[in-house]
Amino acid sequence: MLKPGDTIGILGGGQLARMMALAAAPFGLKCHIFAPEGDNPAFDVSAARTVAGYEDAEALKSFAASVSVVTYEFENVPSTTADILSAHVPVLPAPRALAITQDRFTEKSFIRELGLTVPNFIAVSSLEELEAALMTIGRPSVLKTRRLGYDGKGQAMIREDVSARDAWDAIGHAPAILEAFVPFEREVSVVAARSLAGECVAYDVCENRHKHHILDKTLLPAAVSPRTEAHAKAAAQKIAEALGYVGVFAVEFFVAGSGDQEVLLVNEIAPRVHNSGHWTLGGAETSQFEQHIRAVSGWPLGSVKRLGRIEMENLIGDDVARWADLLAEPGLIIELYGKREARPGRKMGHITRVIR
Amino acid sequence: MLKPGDTIGILGGGQLARMMALAAAPFGLKCHIFAPEGDNPAFDVSAARTVAGYEDAEALKSFAASVSVVTYEFENVPSTTADILSAHVPVLPAPRALAITQDRFTEKSFIRELGLTVPNFIAVSSLEELEAALMTIGRPSVLKTRRLGYDGKGQAMIREDVSARDAWDAIGHAPAILEAFVPFEREVSVVAARSLAGECVAYDVCENRHKHHILDKTLLPAAVSPRTEAHAKAAAQKIAEALGYVGVFAVEFFVAGSGDQEVLLVNEIAPRVHNSGHWTLGGAETSQFEQHIRAVSGWPLGSVKRLGRIEMENLIGDDVARWADLLAEPGLIIELYGKREARPGRKMGHITRVIR
Repeated sequence: MLKPGDTIGILGGGQLARMMALAAAPFGLKCHIFAPEGDNPAFDVSAARTVAGYEDAEALKSFAASVSVVTYEFENVPSTTADILSAHVPVLPAPRALAITQDRFTEKSFIRELGLTVPNFIAVSSLEELEAALMTIGRPSVLKTRRLGYDGKGQAMIREDVSARDAWDAIGHAPAILEAFVPFEREVSVVAARSLAGECVAYDVCENRHKHHILDKTLLPAAVSPRTEAHAKAAAQKIAEALGYVGVFAVEFFVAGSGDQEVLLVNEIAPRVHNSGHWTLGGAETSQFEQHIRAVSGWPLGSVKRLGRIEMENLIGDDVARWADLLAEPGLIIELYGKREARPGRKMGHITRVIR
Repeated sequence: MLKPGDTIGILGGGQLARMMALAAAPFGLKCHIFAPEGDNPAFDVSAARTVAGYEDAEALKSFAASVSVVTYEFENVPSTTADILSAHVPVLPAPRALAITQDRFTEKSFIRELGLTVPNFIAVSSLEELEAALMTIGRPSVLKTRRLGYDGKGQAMIREDVSARDAWDAIGHAPAILEAFVPFEREVSVVAARSLAGECVAYDVCENRHKHHILDKTLLPAAVSPRTEAHAKAAAQKIAEALGYVGVFAVEFFVAGSGDQEVLLVNEIAPRVHNSGHWTLGGAETSQFEQHIRAVSGWPLGSVKRLGRIEMENLIGDDVARWADLLAEPGLIIELYGKREARPGRKMGHITRVIR
């Protein structure tokens, strides 16, 4: 169990690490950020910084020696990195969650084995296997690389007019899964946390709207039935317990059908604080960032009470140029990430309206 | 007007600077802390640090060159320091507020000239003058050094059984004022802000309870009449306008009498964020720290809406050892300052209960 004055190590220097560091400060905790060269806005709010590659064993060892626990802001932490660190210091969430969620096939198999519903899927590693899989899954379907996909990258939609070869070329011939396309009504997620003592909490279900495959808006309450709301939270708890997970994570779902026919399918697990949980910063009694810090510190979790109706909006690229107008909106919660350059598609900040 | 990405310079590295830096981050602002050697918990959450004395002209000049505006966490900034900085960069609040509030005689004269009520006072600079003043003010009265007093330091109560000489010795023969003792019902304060554009906002009146001359608890709403509440806020606005003030400040008052006889007397002005405003962190739509950052950045002010009934409690010295219990209290807002050592009388953190 950590105590005030201790240091948390964070892999990654982006906005998620930054918001974790800001959440650690009110507990008197220090943060040490480990990130490669680049624009690392988390550096600006942290006590210590290491600039090194994730494969730099010497740098990782010194880093491990300087902190009481290591956590991370992204799911693609190389397994060798996690292994080197784990030999010296607790790494939370435990690397097993990374191993499972880094590979879509392993992840979806794990979820299905828990008795949760996922869209039908088949692993494919060649054009021939893809063609065979298409016979089973049908069209439309989605070809997704097993590893390193995010924000719609590494994905190809296979409609009636797309050949297996074009899709296979589009994802660069990487090991993949072919997944049935779900004609969903809406996309929702649950942000949840599990403590070292095994306590589980889940925030209310979030409804997520995407634009160009990037999260645009999160709205609460989600337009789903109470049964679906409860089902989604229970699914998150089941996943956390099966992983022996410690920290905050998100489960993304598709909601198909409506009314009595409403069906919930798990899309993916993010083993980290999540964009669809940004509304909790000011919109819930405990933010997801504080919750994560509490969990990895071995502390009791905080209240997940929502403080009103919520509208969270990402500021992508040039959206951030609206800052002066946003500052003038009474009661608006603004979070800018301190990134140097507003490139197209880059998450520069977010705003949250809490309608009490 | 500052823009996201700019840097705010802060004189002082204690908890007030730390909470200002934490409030600046969500706007994408960086902070550069200037403080002498010592325990400077603000360093742990800031992008840049200068360790130097407040009289170090070279260090002040480099500091000024690296920031877009300078502000401070304490009212005893030496006037030479303010002058050196002002020659290179805007200093907000403007040094005039420091000059007036650093000297109790100047401060109380200024307040009285605004038509506000203060306890009767006379400047004294010798034992003879003190004896003469006692003939006018009477007993009980309070002898206070004109400069550098805080948390009850530099003060001597003169009751019937205390000689002028003992009181004069107690404050070390420093230039002082003799002030009538006010048999007050309660102590209250108003935390308020004024923007560069001249907009004024005031948070609700706070009721403050002290222990050993140090703030122990702040409660809202204060048990004062609506007339007194309005009167206190109007007094704060009058003071801000007369000073041409930009930033957050607090006005401390004594409330004497009750019901229709309730009288408000100004005790002192603090030209900075103030301990009695700590409840705004989580207890109001905009914290006093965010409000100060908005003001000194030349931005519009935020909403001062209070989110419930408030109980703020300081964690002094060993109180901070209660942290593990506090962490388990649902919905409690905790702010620990990251100080290395819990000495008696030292402010280590605070907690706020918001009863919605």
